[in-house]
Amino acid sequence: MQKNNVDTEIMVYLTRKERFNAAHKLWVEEWSEEKNKALFGKCSNKNWHGHNYDLYITVKGTPDPTTGFIMNVKDLSKIIKEFVIDKLDHSNLNLDVEFIPKGTQPTTENLVILIWQQIAPHIQKHNAILHCVKLYETENIYAEYFGE
Amino acid sequence: MQKNNVDTEIMVYLTRKERFNAAHKLWVEEWSEEKNKALFGKCSNKNWHGHNYDLYITVKGTPDPTTGFIMNVKDLSKIIKEFVIDKLDHSNLNLDVEFIPKGTQPTTENLVILIWQQIAPHIQKHNAILHCVKLYETENIYAEYFGE
Amino acid sequence: MQKNNVDTEIMVYLTRKERFNAAHKLWVEEWSEEKNKALFGKCSNKNWHGHNYDLYITVKGTPDPTTGFIMNVKDLSKIIKEFVIDKLDHSNLNLDVEFIPKGTQPTTENLVILIWQQIAPHIQKHNAILHCVKLYETENIYAEYFGE
Amino acid sequence: MQKNNVDTEIMVYLTRKERFNAAHKLWVEEWSEEKNKALFGKCSNKNWHGHNYDLYITVKGTPDPTTGFIMNVKDLSKIIKEFVIDKLDHSNLNLDVEFIPKGTQPTTENLVILIWQQIAPHIQKHNAILHCVKLYETENIYAEYFGE
Amino acid sequence: MQKNNVDTEIMVYLTRKERFNAAHKLWVEEWSEEKNKALFGKCSNKNWHGHNYDLYITVKGTPDPTTGFIMNVKDLSKIIKEFVIDKLDHSNLNLDVEFIPKGTQPTTENLVILIWQQIAPHIQKHNAILHCVKLYETENIYAEYFGE
Amino acid sequence: MQKNNVDTEIMVYLTRKERFNAAHKLWVEEWSEEKNKALFGKCSNKNWHGHNYDLYITVKGTPDPTTGFIMNVKDLSKIIKEFVIDKLDHSNLNLDVEFIPKGTQPTTENLVILIWQQIAPHIQKHNAILHCVKLYETENIYAEYFGE
Repeated sequence: MQKNNVDTEIMVYLTRKERFNAAHKLWVEEWSEEKNKALFGKCSNKNWHGHNYDLYITVKGTPDPTTGFIMNVKDLSKIIKEFVIDKLDHSNLNLDVEFIPKGTQPTTENLVILIWQQIAPHIQKHNAILHCVKLYETENIYAEYFGE
Repeated sequence: MQKNNVDTEIMVYLTRKERFNAAHKLWVEEWSEEKNKALFGKCSNKNWHGHNYDLYITVKGTPDPTTGFIMNVKDLSKIIKEFVIDKLDHSNLNLDVEFIPKGTQPTTENLVILIWQQIAPHIQKHNAILHCVKLYETENIYAEYFGE
Repeated sequence: MQKNNVDTEIMVYLTRKERFNAAHKLWVEEWSEEKNKALFGKCSNKNWHGHNYDLYITVKGTPDPTTGFIMNVKDLSKIIKEFVIDKLDHSNLNLDVEFIPKGTQPTTENLVILIWQQIAPHIQKHNAILHCVKLYETENIYAEYFGE
Repeated sequence: MQKNNVDTEIMVYLTRKERFNAAHKLWVEEWSEEKNKALFGKCSNKNWHGHNYDLYITVKGTPDPTTGFIMNVKDLSKIIKEFVIDKLDHSNLNLDVEFIPKGTQPTTENLVILIWQQIAPHIQKHNAILHCVKLYETENIYAEYFGE
Repeated sequence: MQKNNVDTEIMVYLTRKERFNAAHKLWVEEWSEEKNKALFGKCSNKNWHGHNYDLYITVKGTPDPTTGFIMNVKDLSKIIKEFVIDKLDHSNLNLDVEFIPKGTQPTTENLVILIWQQIAPHIQKHNAILHCVKLYETENIYAEYFGE
Repeated sequence: MQKNNVDTEIMVYLTRKERFNAAHKLWVEEWSEEKNKALFGKCSNKNWHGHNYDLYITVKGTPDPTTGFIMNVKDLSKIIKEFVIDKLDHSNLNLDVEFIPKGTQPTTENLVILIWQQIAPHIQKHNAILHCVKLYETENIYAEYFGE
């Protein structure tokens, strides 16, 4: 018995944006200051710099015929806040965050992978599938990870 | 005989953005007010609330060697306006729109599917293929549908 | 005795952005439907329409020599949320909001005045002065009020 | 021996935004003025018009375990500037650009293909793969090309 | 006899955004090519370049106690379109526009003054006062004129 | 002898946007950790956090009748870069910047005053007047200083 004329086998993608800001630097311990500067430029400033990060989490699934939800976007927002934003916001990405292993460069590319690992298990509990983690470091640079 | 050096077998994606604003509420008639509030929160306000929606329609095809067009973006804009915007703009999504069946929750997820059904047949007449319907409900929430 | 070299007599302006969304219609009870339509167009839809509103509140004052604050932006945010956002978000501006008198058109122009009246007394308690209420109804329309 | 716990086989996408502005017109030499106007409308103005273009280049690859980079985003930016922006910025797209063949309409659809051809060989030298060229002509129109 | 509790002596500012795109160049006829290049750089390209312009027109007045309008924003939009957008959109600012005198550089600074002169008389007929013309040439450059 | 019909006594405002990113923390040395946390919240994280800052510098003056410039926007950009951006970009605002006195909180309010002092003398040499320094710390918070 179907509530609406929306086919229940179809796949829809739902995205939620959240924000955090943080300090970081790009620095390889085993390298000299010159080598770090040559590769990372101003991003290697030993006193840190920082960014306002925009994070987009996309899940996919079939809209429930009664609620019209893939998953409740409030639950999606709660998961992102509990497992990512609360740990990254106003933090130092090199020093303060348990899920970023020491020595892992906090580049945008590495962050999207690590954020995927934090979020994916919790999406599954809501009968949806994590599809994409997209992270803007500045308005000119972003990385995406699709779990492949 | 070819007008330019652009390969005629290649696939390019073209997107047009349009806007509408509308009132709606999320509410299951068969449920109590408590159950509606528990699931939908403030979105269940019986007196409605509303949004400025941003709609992105993406079509794909091969650029014509003479005009450089997949399809004329003015025709794409006209189709979106005639079959979607004119019906949704300044409307109540629960009450006013023929192509939204009564009882179907006007969630972003359901809207992208219903908008797809409105637009797809008209794109085909222009030798292009509808690829994606993307709808922002707020700057923080959007849904996408690829017709699969 | 001064903590920094920032002159303590100077005036700085601080702005905080918050968001809400709401339904409304523009409708004069004493007028016929025709007259309402002629003036208000689609905004007079009897079943309502709605918007995502962006609200910018600007206060002015002298930065405290120790904290560097005109007033704590967290306090500013709390005032806006308690006295404006919590009352307007997901509401019907014609029906649900105590501080919008019945019969007052919920135009952007009237809203900035009414929001000013809600916020101004609470800013004074923080030794700052309310300078401007700016409200976007869409990306193309906004109103400002400076209390004069 | 691995520096971090980021799997080295995974694929991450990195995007860099650059900007240029240019004049152009859409005009088929073999057609009458009437036919050009009928198809291209105001875009056929013989005295030209112009746009601020936003260009997004997406590359994909596996983050290096030491640097956390797919490729250095500064190198990506340099490639885009040398081979695209320096040639298109403040130019007339119909007259001034060597890599746009005369007679090829400078539509957004054709531009993304031609920009792809300019950039792809240089990305390969950095052990990354060009994934997408996305170009905004206005805030309402953009084209994408994935090289397929 | 007052319809609402909004004071009728107060001043509110209402802004409408419109868009156009155009080609132009900066070039002083009496100067050599070298001198033009030295001052105007790439903006002196003899084959033109162009921009997407964002135009914000701000009027001020007292909201009408019945309609809540300073002036009907639809009338404001019509005035801007008839007297400015229709004349500038898809034009060449050096060649095509009657209200830009030949030899006047089409800089953002000059355009805001000339647009003011086009619009001001028509605002007065609606019992509102033109307050500001603001014009973005790119996201990084804008000019404002307040008629003083 | 006048080149155009633009009145030479009128005042136009010209704004240039530049960007930088930086780390900082809000912390009063004389206070306990508890007192710092109570007032500054997460902004007092001893390991720093950071932001992408958007800086808008507005100058005013009369457009030159020949060039149409208040001042050459390229000169304005150079001044901002030399005296502000090069010193703040990828820096730690508490530790690295000579023109921010030690002990001065790097709040947005204090930064606009200090940036004003850096820029104002150099604008005067170009026969323009500095009118406003506006600085966004996040999309939700900005400060302005008008030199009064």
